[in-house]
Amino acid sequence: MSRLAKLLTSQGKASVRDLDAIDLHTHVYLPRYMDILRARTDVPLVRPGIGGERLIILPAEKQQMEQEQHSATSHTAGISAGRPIGGEYWDVSSKLRYMDHHGIRTSVLSLANPWLDFLPLEEQIHQATLFNDDMETLCRDSNGRFLAFGVVPQDSTTAVKEVQRVASELPHVRGVILSTAGLNGKGLDDPEMLEFYREIDRARLTIFLHPHYGVGNEHYAEYGHALFLALGFTFETTVAVSRLVLSGLLDQVPDTLRLLLAHSGGALPFLAGRLDSCVEHDAAIAQKLQHLPSVYLKRFYYDAVAYHEPALQCLIDFVGSDKIVFGTDHPFFPPAKKESSDNEDLSELDWRSTLSNYEIMANMSKEVQSAILRENAKRLMGN
Amino acid sequence: MSRLAKLLTSQGKASVRDLDAIDLHTHVYLPRYMDILRARTDVPLVRPGIGGERLIILPAEKQQMEQEQHSATSHTAGISAGRPIGGEYWDVSSKLRYMDHHGIRTSVLSLANPWLDFLPLEEQIHQATLFNDDMETLCRDSNGRFLAFGVVPQDSTTAVKEVQRVASELPHVRGVILSTAGLNGKGLDDPEMLEFYREIDRARLTIFLHPHYGVGNEHYAEYGHALFLALGFTFETTVAVSRLVLSGLLDQVPDTLRLLLAHSGGALPFLAGRLDSCVEHDAAIAQKLQHLPSVYLKRFYYDAVAYHEPALQCLIDFVGSDKIVFGTDHPFFPPAKKESSDNEDLSELDWRSTLSNYEIMANMSKEVQSAILRENAKRLMGN
Repeated sequence: MSRLAKLLTSQGKASVRDLDAIDLHTHVYLPRYMDILRARTDVPLVRPGIGGERLIILPAEKQQMEQEQHSATSHTAGISAGRPIGGEYWDVSSKLRYMDHHGIRTSVLSLANPWLDFLPLEEQIHQATLFNDDMETLCRDSNGRFLAFGVVPQDSTTAVKEVQRVASELPHVRGVILSTAGLNGKGLDDPEMLEFYREIDRARLTIFLHPHYGVGNEHYAEYGHALFLALGFTFETTVAVSRLVLSGLLDQVPDTLRLLLAHSGGALPFLAGRLDSCVEHDAAIAQKLQHLPSVYLKRFYYDAVAYHEPALQCLIDFVGSDKIVFGTDHPFFPPAKKESSDNEDLSELDWRSTLSNYEIMANMSKEVQSAILRENAKRLMGN
Repeated sequence: MSRLAKLLTSQGKASVRDLDAIDLHTHVYLPRYMDILRARTDVPLVRPGIGGERLIILPAEKQQMEQEQHSATSHTAGISAGRPIGGEYWDVSSKLRYMDHHGIRTSVLSLANPWLDFLPLEEQIHQATLFNDDMETLCRDSNGRFLAFGVVPQDSTTAVKEVQRVASELPHVRGVILSTAGLNGKGLDDPEMLEFYREIDRARLTIFLHPHYGVGNEHYAEYGHALFLALGFTFETTVAVSRLVLSGLLDQVPDTLRLLLAHSGGALPFLAGRLDSCVEHDAAIAQKLQHLPSVYLKRFYYDAVAYHEPALQCLIDFVGSDKIVFGTDHPFFPPAKKESSDNEDLSELDWRSTLSNYEIMANMSKEVQSAILRENAKRLMGN
């Protein structure tokens, strides 16, 4: 029996379409965001390219784009840097078709990286309220199919105010997505983040921490985006959260703070024991902390975007199955388009990347599967 | 029952001293190496400091040393950069006392980082033969307590010759320790490494791959050595091996190549699924390879220096219990010295770092424990 069939049998479902999952890691570029990206000439941007529009957002892609521009023989030449971007990124009906095809009852939408980080601060403050209002409207009109993580400007004072506004006025926005740069570009361990953490906790909202900038980027250039995404992203989360833990800031925040780590926490579930050991053997660091690092790490939530069973099992063994939520990372990692059909609807295809994050649960108990597929998410997204 | 008691019961042993383990990750600074380090004024070096000699080897430590030198009020002031270094690093009798106390029957010694990497190439070539001869003598006279990984100069041509000499003349040297910089400072994916990999395979020797340089170092400075060692080291191994895999070089080397990865493979066992997925979605990379990355990763050997059970279980789930060997990382991560006793013999104390790598096996079956503690190592170190 295939892994997928095993999961369906265990869940008592006839088809993937019936899985009734809640997806906490799924992105959207709102139409307002597409307008911003299309108007830009520097990364991040969207522009016409070979076979349709292309999205260029990663530091590594900027270099590729510049090389292509230098070698272009005509100003009208299309570019191949970045990746194809279609309706799956901004069209709500496309997202819904993808969700129906893959058994996702509810998606908790978040703006994809790099969020508002590249805009001037005044513009971030202005746009954050518009985006959050957009998200609220989109979710409110979705008949229960969408909830959302909002955005905050990269400024600790105004971010706190926006969290308060979200909490009081936008009931479908259940938290905010946050970059590892934190609110002031100085990381999650910047002491000025404290009031933000406290306000998030008071409001019973969730921080969805997500990478964008990469760590170790100087090592990946020869290998396309594969190593940047596989290693750079996961190292970035691992570093940012380790710094937050070692800073001692969490000793000044209630232990009920809801922090959700993307991509199963990077490498943290595997490295937590070594991190504990290294801290135990560094008295200057250990004395500043009330607990070993793993104690803090076990308070957090992790998505199950792990792509193989040994990693998901490691995460369960480390943090417990009640802290793990299903995710897909849609619309990234799409199925390859058939060359013959430019107008193919990606949302009606099987997304291997999504199915594999179902398949890695096949050998877990029904209870663990159900907790990860939907029950934990309901609890986390409730108030 | 404590985890240690549970392991002893499962193994049918009365005491840790009886565990009869083989330690494949244990370092030594041979007296010849100490002479080199004591004569140096730049990192790496050994010099007098507060409470005895101090070892300064890490990039992060160099900066600390320079700051102390600038702020010193007297030329005779001791320095506190680096770490205390005593007989546990070079004294064979001290290593044996530590081994007896912790139930280690055989240690497969390797020179600790940064090996010979910092010496001019001519000096590396000269010293490598001397070190390997030293190791052979030390092991031959040890009544079976020691085997060794040798060293090679950072030059693919002379390294191949030294591998041939080791294979034919030094029966106790069962492989070589190698830095992630590879033989030409261009990494493990440098095509000039091919002949070295082939010669290692022909000789049925083992490459013990070990980090030193760190990845992401710009993020760790405020947190002592804890993050450099916990994350920088493990990221370094992860990056170097991922590059080797994605380069396609392994398709040109027999799949019997014996590559042993330090620190349980960095973060690779956890990230292998994501690495597969990122390669699958990057056609340019995927087309160059005969297999997905995890296929290559499963050929390798990994030490069990993992520090918590979820990581060791992940490693077992990923690679299988027949590819994992016990290790301690001795003499790094020593027990804290009591301030009152400068002459305390560290080797007679309980090493928490060593015991924790026993304890993480407590819940495994006796067969898995025995495979990791000694059986796999016997097979790998045999010819």
